[in-house]
Amino acid sequence: MSKERLIYLPLGGAGEIGMNAYVYGYGREGQERLILVDLGVTFPDMDTTPGVDLIFADIGWLAARADRLEAIFITHAHEDHVGAVGHLWQRLRVPVYARPFTANHAARKMQEQGNDPAQVKPVQAWPERIKAGPFEVSFLPVSHSIPESAGLVIDTPVGRIVHTGDFKLDPTPVLGDPFDPALWGEVVRAGVKVLTCDSTNVFSPNPGRSEASLAPAIRQLVARSSGMFVATTFASNIARLKTLAEAGQAAGRSVCLLGRAMRRMIEAGVESGVLTDFPKTVSPEEAGNIPRESLMLIVTGSQGERRAASAQLSRGKYMGLTLKEGDSFLFSSKTIPGNERGVLRIVNAYSEMGVDVIDDGADLYHVSGHANRPDLARIHKLIAPRVVVPMHGEHRHLREHVKLAEENGLNAIVAPNGTMLDLTGDTPKVAEFVETGRTYLDGSVQIGALDGVARDRIRMALNGHAVVTVVIDENDEPLGEPWVDLKGLAETGKSNVPLADILEADLEQFLGRASEDTLGDDDKIEDAMRRILRQSAEREIGKKPEVTVIVSRLTT
Amino acid sequence: MSKERLIYLPLGGAGEIGMNAYVYGYGREGQERLILVDLGVTFPDMDTTPGVDLIFADIGWLAARADRLEAIFITHAHEDHVGAVGHLWQRLRVPVYARPFTANHAARKMQEQGNDPAQVKPVQAWPERIKAGPFEVSFLPVSHSIPESAGLVIDTPVGRIVHTGDFKLDPTPVLGDPFDPALWGEVVRAGVKVLTCDSTNVFSPNPGRSEASLAPAIRQLVARSSGMFVATTFASNIARLKTLAEAGQAAGRSVCLLGRAMRRMIEAGVESGVLTDFPKTVSPEEAGNIPRESLMLIVTGSQGERRAASAQLSRGKYMGLTLKEGDSFLFSSKTIPGNERGVLRIVNAYSEMGVDVIDDGADLYHVSGHANRPDLARIHKLIAPRVVVPMHGEHRHLREHVKLAEENGLNAIVAPNGTMLDLTGDTPKVAEFVETGRTYLDGSVQIGALDGVARDRIRMALNGHAVVTVVIDENDEPLGEPWVDLKGLAETGKSNVPLADILEADLEQFLGRASEDTLGDDDKIEDAMRRILRQSAEREIGKKPEVTVIVSRLTT
Repeated sequence: MSKERLIYLPLGGAGEIGMNAYVYGYGREGQERLILVDLGVTFPDMDTTPGVDLIFADIGWLAARADRLEAIFITHAHEDHVGAVGHLWQRLRVPVYARPFTANHAARKMQEQGNDPAQVKPVQAWPERIKAGPFEVSFLPVSHSIPESAGLVIDTPVGRIVHTGDFKLDPTPVLGDPFDPALWGEVVRAGVKVLTCDSTNVFSPNPGRSEASLAPAIRQLVARSSGMFVATTFASNIARLKTLAEAGQAAGRSVCLLGRAMRRMIEAGVESGVLTDFPKTVSPEEAGNIPRESLMLIVTGSQGERRAASAQLSRGKYMGLTLKEGDSFLFSSKTIPGNERGVLRIVNAYSEMGVDVIDDGADLYHVSGHANRPDLARIHKLIAPRVVVPMHGEHRHLREHVKLAEENGLNAIVAPNGTMLDLTGDTPKVAEFVETGRTYLDGSVQIGALDGVARDRIRMALNGHAVVTVVIDENDEPLGEPWVDLKGLAETGKSNVPLADILEADLEQFLGRASEDTLGDDDKIEDAMRRILRQSAEREIGKKPEVTVIVSRLTT
Repeated sequence: MSKERLIYLPLGGAGEIGMNAYVYGYGREGQERLILVDLGVTFPDMDTTPGVDLIFADIGWLAARADRLEAIFITHAHEDHVGAVGHLWQRLRVPVYARPFTANHAARKMQEQGNDPAQVKPVQAWPERIKAGPFEVSFLPVSHSIPESAGLVIDTPVGRIVHTGDFKLDPTPVLGDPFDPALWGEVVRAGVKVLTCDSTNVFSPNPGRSEASLAPAIRQLVARSSGMFVATTFASNIARLKTLAEAGQAAGRSVCLLGRAMRRMIEAGVESGVLTDFPKTVSPEEAGNIPRESLMLIVTGSQGERRAASAQLSRGKYMGLTLKEGDSFLFSSKTIPGNERGVLRIVNAYSEMGVDVIDDGADLYHVSGHANRPDLARIHKLIAPRVVVPMHGEHRHLREHVKLAEENGLNAIVAPNGTMLDLTGDTPKVAEFVETGRTYLDGSVQIGALDGVARDRIRMALNGHAVVTVVIDENDEPLGEPWVDLKGLAETGKSNVPLADILEADLEQFLGRASEDTLGDDDKIEDAMRRILRQSAEREIGKKPEVTVIVSRLTT
């Protein structure tokens, strides 16, 4: 009979930035009691997941072992950590623990998906401890770009794990918990077995800068501007919202928040008690009556999202407000790779209006929420774990983070999604590879990434879709002519007559010559017609469309 | 009767980076004799132009006046300047002038599209002049990131225009023409009326760096590496290829070029005489027999293109070669906005193989081919034109370039695509706005951007496609049941039975109740069925698909 062991299994977040979901377990092999850290989403894109609403980690492995799951712990309220809780909770059905601000968000997400929000348990930070089977878990306040972020101190029968969550070392985070070396010292005093650590900024060579360092530059920028001043940042970065709003206030401007997410975040901040002294704001209606040089808007849409306030303003009026020549627009944010085109679309639209756009090329108006390379080295040293397990990064980040740890004389291992590590001893071992993947939320339905739905959409988008209908009578004779309906295809090709006519003529010719044997067999008709249509289309327009053949048989 | 005037009309390239096409004209209003500078392409993306092969400027305005067109001048052989020549020449049918290396490319493009390559006339640089109606045009050698780039000196009856093309001020470009202040001095001595000027790097605050400055860092990097060394850059940057190959040679490595574009560029370089002393290369077959530590590959695919050599190598074997742990891969290039995801896909695939990727975060291994802000200011000063017309940039670049010119006391004007300027006097005036747009090459067919083809593809990709077939008999009675075929949609929704079954049941119910009036009218049937299907689908899966309804009527 096997001995008890400590395991770690990332289902999401290791090998990508997004959809974090990390499992820890302790017990005899195959009987480990489990906890889950974070349950986030990642966002779709047109290239690989058109039409999809959200992407979750495939939690099949965990759901099949839900009877062994003790609890879910959420480190902070960013979507890539909490976004899937409402959608996937039904398959896990255990309590969800988080600090109050995060719990506020998690509970709302539970409610939105028809789950009981009371399953979310707000808890206090260290030294409060939550017992979860063989584990005891405590929330360690860390600074990040959203209030009440936490690392987790996970005590196991074989030693302590520190799971950092997303973090940076910020002594002056404007709002929320500053980096507290004394507190970390207390946590690590008895020795740490495993450090599971954020890898996002391992390629950033300089020490991270503090959130508070931005205020002077932002104040100066707002003070110098003449027309309306508009700023965007992530709605969840309440510290930044505060810095921006205070800069507006200091310049004698009324501050107006635009965008649903923006207002919801401020509400959650107030409800959970993390936000106490935000400058007074005016409503969009009130803003409409304030002279533009006395107004500051703080708006959603720093990533160029088409429906966010920033994009709407770039297309014209939004909530009764319009920008014009002489106004200023500040991106107090960084563009996430993949969002460049959307952001530039907005910047150019503002340029056409004569609005001056200030982006963060010079790093004056934005700081990252993640620990940079020297900060990571500092934490490695401070915690001095037996093993470093990099997480929250693409493969290149994980690999580089392992190199960094090894440079500092630590054991470290790359463990992408699906790699189950045995962390019982002092040297991490790969115990098993578990099949992992992605689940898509598509409308209101969850579908597997490999179900072929996205693949078919991509094919229709690349090749167009031709639908052929043919009616066959009781005697297996074609009735009338085949009908071709085209979507997403050129109307005419080389022959300069409608493409559909050409295709129909070719298909009719085939039907006229087809043997009884063929006409009696739907599969044969479909195969042949698909092939003919694709050949004809290729000749006419240089493309082979996706083809659907519908054979309607009359029966009596 | 109106007087003669000098006009400028960008059909592409002003308000975007890509598909350059600039018209100049001189003569009485509506009778101006015209020349065209550049005829390039831009590249499609999945978000806006799925399945499209290439994008051209809509040259409708010019084609309608082809009888007034004298000639086409191509500044250099980049695709965004020469790529549409083969595809659009039939509509213009005038001689195409370019320097030999560029002419080599243009002629090949003509041939590929079935046009006479002899229509491309290779010409020598300044002081050689080409007469084209009221214009005399001379090619002014400039440095850029491809050999034999040229600005154009365009003499008109009312003064000289300098059209820079893409350029930088490089005294040591490794290959081709260095920046020659004396030559430029000669050109501007008699005074310049208009400077039409590259705006790409107007936001880059420091003076541009020379191509030659890269060699030491690249040599050191290659010399220090142990396994196989692989580098990628734009195939057309022959100077860079030379620097890379020489670094390999210096490190005692055999050099192998991988990728069709790479070999074609070297050929064109040799044929046109711009390339004389490229290091000896080995074939991929020979490379397979060389120890990896003695081999350097220079490969296509610096932008993450899925079918290029870099991507193929990241997925496994390519031309008999594979990378492995300990090898190095250098991006001697910058990622163009929008290509980040593709590039990172490759970087992470290499990370999984254990290949060390060196990207150009620190600007050690790549320099831009465009003049930076201080370089632009220097050119403004050197040329001292009456008017600066910024081109080759998004709107934000054009606007910023105007600001820069005005800071230096010059007249300048933002003229995006379709803005016809009257440049006759000393102050530029907007003469007219001309409708411009884009044409897509889709397979072998040219379609208008507004034809709805791309729109339909995007809709199918976002919403899926449901096809409904119903057969109606001679008495306007439905024959059998309606049939639903789904593509790109979830198979089951809320009810946990096949979605198609649910939709068919709802549609059948409708048909059973439909009035004679409805059943007699295809449009009414289609509208109703589309509406019902979308409602049912929304209820079941939370999505409204694209719907095609096909009514087959039996007639006797």
